[in-house]
Amino acid sequence: MTSARADTVAVLGTGLIGTSIALAALRAGMTVAGWDSALDVAERAAARGGFRSAPTLQDAVKDAELVIVATPIAAVADVVASALEAAPRAVVSDAGSIKSRIVQEVIDRVEDEQVSRFVPGHPMGGGERSGPDHASASIVDGIVWVVTPTERSSPDALATVEQFVERIGGHPVQMTPERHDRLVAFVSHLPQVASSTLMGLAATEEADEPDMLLLAAGGFRDLTRLAASDARLWSEILLSNADEIVRAIDLYVARLSTLRERIAERDPEHVERSFGEAKDARLHLAAKPQVRAGVAVIQVQIADRPGALADLTAALARGEVNIEDLQIVHSPEGGRGTVHLTVAATTADEASSVLAATGFDPVRLA
Amino acid sequence: MTSARADTVAVLGTGLIGTSIALAALRAGMTVAGWDSALDVAERAAARGGFRSAPTLQDAVKDAELVIVATPIAAVADVVASALEAAPRAVVSDAGSIKSRIVQEVIDRVEDEQVSRFVPGHPMGGGERSGPDHASASIVDGIVWVVTPTERSSPDALATVEQFVERIGGHPVQMTPERHDRLVAFVSHLPQVASSTLMGLAATEEADEPDMLLLAAGGFRDLTRLAASDARLWSEILLSNADEIVRAIDLYVARLSTLRERIAERDPEHVERSFGEAKDARLHLAAKPQVRAGVAVIQVQIADRPGALADLTAALARGEVNIEDLQIVHSPEGGRGTVHLTVAATTADEASSVLAATGFDPVRLA
Repeated sequence: MTSARADTVAVLGTGLIGTSIALAALRAGMTVAGWDSALDVAERAAARGGFRSAPTLQDAVKDAELVIVATPIAAVADVVASALEAAPRAVVSDAGSIKSRIVQEVIDRVEDEQVSRFVPGHPMGGGERSGPDHASASIVDGIVWVVTPTERSSPDALATVEQFVERIGGHPVQMTPERHDRLVAFVSHLPQVASSTLMGLAATEEADEPDMLLLAAGGFRDLTRLAASDARLWSEILLSNADEIVRAIDLYVARLSTLRERIAERDPEHVERSFGEAKDARLHLAAKPQVRAGVAVIQVQIADRPGALADLTAALARGEVNIEDLQIVHSPEGGRGTVHLTVAATTADEASSVLAATGFDPVRLA
Repeated sequence: MTSARADTVAVLGTGLIGTSIALAALRAGMTVAGWDSALDVAERAAARGGFRSAPTLQDAVKDAELVIVATPIAAVADVVASALEAAPRAVVSDAGSIKSRIVQEVIDRVEDEQVSRFVPGHPMGGGERSGPDHASASIVDGIVWVVTPTERSSPDALATVEQFVERIGGHPVQMTPERHDRLVAFVSHLPQVASSTLMGLAATEEADEPDMLLLAAGGFRDLTRLAASDARLWSEILLSNADEIVRAIDLYVARLSTLRERIAERDPEHVERSFGEAKDARLHLAAKPQVRAGVAVIQVQIADRPGALADLTAALARGEVNIEDLQIVHSPEGGRGTVHLTVAATTADEASSVLAATGFDPVRLA
């Protein structure tokens, strides 16, 4: 390794995250090869973005300065070890959702020199979808990308990975593998558990109470959106971080049980205080600048009919406001939708004013 | 009461829901008066939509054929009783989030003839916002509006309320007050508890682990959006439905504890099956009734400039195609962005053809 900068990249495992990383690397002008153990998946992924689909792992990494392993967790260590072996000068990173176990598995498999070229990572993106057909370079835009060097990762290798993350649009955040696993148990794994468990409970109850889900409005939908995620993937993630997630569930259950006791005792002060603290924390979170600096989020109600969104977007076009992102949230019976618009903060006032002038009722959320 | 149809309506309590109902009634051509115990709130609400702000409850209801009480829960029974007394021929309904306790309180306060004119209700809308400034007639569009007649509500009074709901844009769904309270404990109150508790836990943990919330991505944000709701309002709702919510929390905690045990035992089959069942239920929920036959996803490239999305949505509006969902996949480099459109499968061909005719290059993904 003579320079931290990698211009030739191989992505091993071309599902949602791997293909999105490949597309973002292409967009940044890098040369990209992709490989997947399912050859047809790699070909479908490569066709989406025009990068090279390699027939073997060895072929994919042969010119690579940086290799990103984005396979399912169970395969990461083996594929990392193969890549370190096949590309004796390349830096190797991964995109696995847990880190400590992967680090231990890699160290158990490879030689010291090879460990120095391995810098684990975790791009904090994705969502409930999967597969290369949903991939997009934009999934990488502005995301926090945790980089967890081991004690034996070389500084040059670390620099290569951090520079790559920045060049393709992410924000590298460095911490130890252990700390990563402790934090994601609370902000990523526990939300998945809370969401799937709520959805499973409501579905079971509906068997006895038909129409229960007819009453499910936007709040229930927000809470259960994650429950649509890939079940095998999440089973694997949770079991790979079992000790931390068990601890997080225990703390969650303890809090729920305390609140349950206070509700049973009809203690309004405790209940209101606990909800008030959560509200303050949530408002603070919504205002966090580092998530996406310089944007504003505006909520608008629209009717659920042909042309409703056209009225909204036409108003913004007249105001010369570019829409950075737009998310539609539907009501259970489809009469009404809520749209969350993301616009540059500098254009938020203009956006609100043209929307109001057109008869919409914009509410600025952040 | 000579007819089920009410054309003159009074709304008592002009917060988010009361004002939204008043605006929807105005939109439907009714004559509307509003009153709030905080006179400035009623005036602010009335100014938003041009309905009459009444100085007293008695003045608000004096010509009303239908009175909707939308005060905080603790005040509903008193205000309902006053309205039944002050307007001896009017039908009275309410918009309280719980029903059994309100029904009991009203029956305790009023005479039999008055009970026959009371038909409790609950429009299932709202969200994390509050106050008349966020009100909008569109909040009522297409929402499920539970109507819970008591054993002594007259059929004419019930018909008046159901007809009103339909005329202003809601879907009346009839059930007993007790059943309503049992169902909303699962689909409305428990999600609020799950959301606020998760947010409170993560905020507490962040005190020991700075940057935890920096890793919070879209999933965590979805789960905790409800936590920004009004703390006093929710404390009141939960304590008014304490028995049902305690039962729902117990069932939720029992499921979480079972999953926790299976994770601790490293039992992939149970974990994957439980997540898989939740996924199936959530996908079933996601499909709106009218599009359960299937949806199609169409990918379109658009230029990254003001007006690009307006061209796209206008084309679909011309083709009478309703957009079920739209996701922008944005290129920060400028130039091109990708949009994923979800439309009913039955309209996919029409969508593709109007888009192609307008110069877009639609690709059907699913």
